[in-house]
Amino acid sequence: MQKRSAKGRRLFFGIRRGGIVNQGRFVVTYRIQGGRDFVRQQAEAICLEQTVELPDQLTPDGFIREEILGRIEAIEEAGPGRFDVRISYADACAAGELTQFLNVVFGNTSLKPGIRVQGIALSPGILGLFPGPRFGIKGVRKRVGQPNKPLLCTALKPMGYSPREIAKLAHGFAMGGVDIIKDDHGLSDQPFCRFEERVRACVAAVAEANARSGHGSLYAPNITAPFPRLLERARFAVEQGAGALLIAPGLTGFDAMRHLAADPSIHLPILAHPALLGSAVTGMGNGFSHGVLFGLLQRLAGADVSIFPNYGGRFGFSRPECAEIAAACTGPLGELAPIFPSPGGGMTLDRVPDMLDLYGEDVLFLIGGGLYGHSPDLAANVRYFLGMVGR
Amino acid sequence: MQKRSAKGRRLFFGIRRGGIVNQGRFVVTYRIQGGRDFVRQQAEAICLEQTVELPDQLTPDGFIREEILGRIEAIEEAGPGRFDVRISYADACAAGELTQFLNVVFGNTSLKPGIRVQGIALSPGILGLFPGPRFGIKGVRKRVGQPNKPLLCTALKPMGYSPREIAKLAHGFAMGGVDIIKDDHGLSDQPFCRFEERVRACVAAVAEANARSGHGSLYAPNITAPFPRLLERARFAVEQGAGALLIAPGLTGFDAMRHLAADPSIHLPILAHPALLGSAVTGMGNGFSHGVLFGLLQRLAGADVSIFPNYGGRFGFSRPECAEIAAACTGPLGELAPIFPSPGGGMTLDRVPDMLDLYGEDVLFLIGGGLYGHSPDLAANVRYFLGMVGR
Repeated sequence: MQKRSAKGRRLFFGIRRGGIVNQGRFVVTYRIQGGRDFVRQQAEAICLEQTVELPDQLTPDGFIREEILGRIEAIEEAGPGRFDVRISYADACAAGELTQFLNVVFGNTSLKPGIRVQGIALSPGILGLFPGPRFGIKGVRKRVGQPNKPLLCTALKPMGYSPREIAKLAHGFAMGGVDIIKDDHGLSDQPFCRFEERVRACVAAVAEANARSGHGSLYAPNITAPFPRLLERARFAVEQGAGALLIAPGLTGFDAMRHLAADPSIHLPILAHPALLGSAVTGMGNGFSHGVLFGLLQRLAGADVSIFPNYGGRFGFSRPECAEIAAACTGPLGELAPIFPSPGGGMTLDRVPDMLDLYGEDVLFLIGGGLYGHSPDLAANVRYFLGMVGR
Repeated sequence: MQKRSAKGRRLFFGIRRGGIVNQGRFVVTYRIQGGRDFVRQQAEAICLEQTVELPDQLTPDGFIREEILGRIEAIEEAGPGRFDVRISYADACAAGELTQFLNVVFGNTSLKPGIRVQGIALSPGILGLFPGPRFGIKGVRKRVGQPNKPLLCTALKPMGYSPREIAKLAHGFAMGGVDIIKDDHGLSDQPFCRFEERVRACVAAVAEANARSGHGSLYAPNITAPFPRLLERARFAVEQGAGALLIAPGLTGFDAMRHLAADPSIHLPILAHPALLGSAVTGMGNGFSHGVLFGLLQRLAGADVSIFPNYGGRFGFSRPECAEIAAACTGPLGELAPIFPSPGGGMTLDRVPDMLDLYGEDVLFLIGGGLYGHSPDLAANVRYFLGMVGR
């Protein structure tokens, strides 16, 4: 062991002298189910698993043990039979990449039951890697010309409609003054509704309606697709005059969204859709907390709007879980701009007052079926909703 | 409703006449927790949720109701308080894209607790979209020159070692005759172990050892990274003479792996690592079955090897779950080649006989810590293991 230790130290100092190790550390809070002794063992296992992936006795002393190995910072009881364990990792482990950052946070440990990523305290080094949202709440408000009050978003559907039919709906919603009119996330590039044809038709329909009504509705096409095609679609949408973009990072990977948000030629607000992310929160005690998944990670990866299932709708999220998401979207996170929480999913118009109570005015309500079903006149339905939020 | 119906039918026949709707359907089996009536309601909700995303009464008749809407094919009891529901979807809904295929399978429904994707019966139309594994079991065996018997894989670690230290380990393992020597999935492009330097060093070390020992060990660098960089790393690895590639689709998205496997310039076997995929199986009754996630999806997306946590190791997978993965890796799946199941994760050498009993000979054992810890002589440890599997 002494030989290992000496070697490790040499390496350690050598690297520090070279100045290539960032000495900052970020801290992940894991909520672990079990008694205190078991949780301590699990915590020690996480420190190894997420970094050296070796048994403790094989982990070299020196630089690797002192800097690379995860470090238990605190273990605190979080309720009956569960503890919050704070483990720090060297920024350098994340290699400046979102993919590797996620790997250090939860890669292998995601495979163990009874462990959840409850929170992440980002270091300046990690925060500095990600420009985050380009627009945020302020930027989106400026784009839609609505400096305060809740905003309204709706979805164009159903899958199966032609571009002309979809564009007709977009026109109706824009006439009523919906702030952001997005493709349903299931509209991709189906043979019955090609992406380019749909984008052209919807951009034209919304522009025509805006010119007539005086509103500034934005159309947000769904660009979720295999990677190179995703960029092509984003560029096409920009060229055609779309007002925002919709992407589902659960389908593309979070890094694809980060890439979009960092591309200066694609200067549109990004709406993040939660498709396929659900398994990370539906298994109680596993995966990620709602705030980390639908707040922190979306924001870090550049979303300006985070869409998630509202409490009491057709999904099972609770009111406190939704409050946690909203807080993670809008609370302090280094220099990163706050983003819009966008609750949706089976919401009806009569639930708006309670939602206002929870979310306050910095919210983008996503109402789909509720706006379609209220009456046959889409524009009238929109005006009815806007009246409910004092607009 | 009559007007809607007439309109729907016109559209329906119009599109069919145009020949752009593929009439095939693929079938997803959802395992749903609950009583029979509740499960029936959930099944009807899934049919809407995954396609039109509208309430039933707002779903247009005709083409959309008849073709686009998910269709319940069967509901069968799967045990006390749970049912298997088979729902079919039109191939056209998947738009020829893996991202949208995953969205139709489980996008929004992943957000509902108590529903798991238990199986997927792929149609010829969907199977035809994906070339799948380029090498498969036969191709990998040919590359390593071992036509039968189990193969051996190990991982280079720990994170924190320099490229020279990593390459020294690679040399030792190659001298012993490990078939595939992969980067640990935590080795990315850290400042203390740059990707390019590591790949150059390891390729040279393994080539030198192969020349001396007569073995045909392959070195597999980890190319998991943000998308464009991932392709650059894959190309660099090809140019330098790497023998295979490691990628973690949970970090990059499954589609990034599919893209790699379809790129003719990157003609190397692909090892898929399970990092960050765990949440999809740790929540009992949610997410995906082990066979779908670690077998079918990996294979569809082009993996030649699927790495997963072995039963009885430091992760919680059971023996039947591992058997399910192995069956999904090697069983019939259209024209797609069978791929190697690669169980790993805290395996020690004494567990090999029981694993042979479960997996048979078409298996790539991934042994990391066990090979490091058996004795200080890596090559001797490898030979000891190979003896255990009759090589």
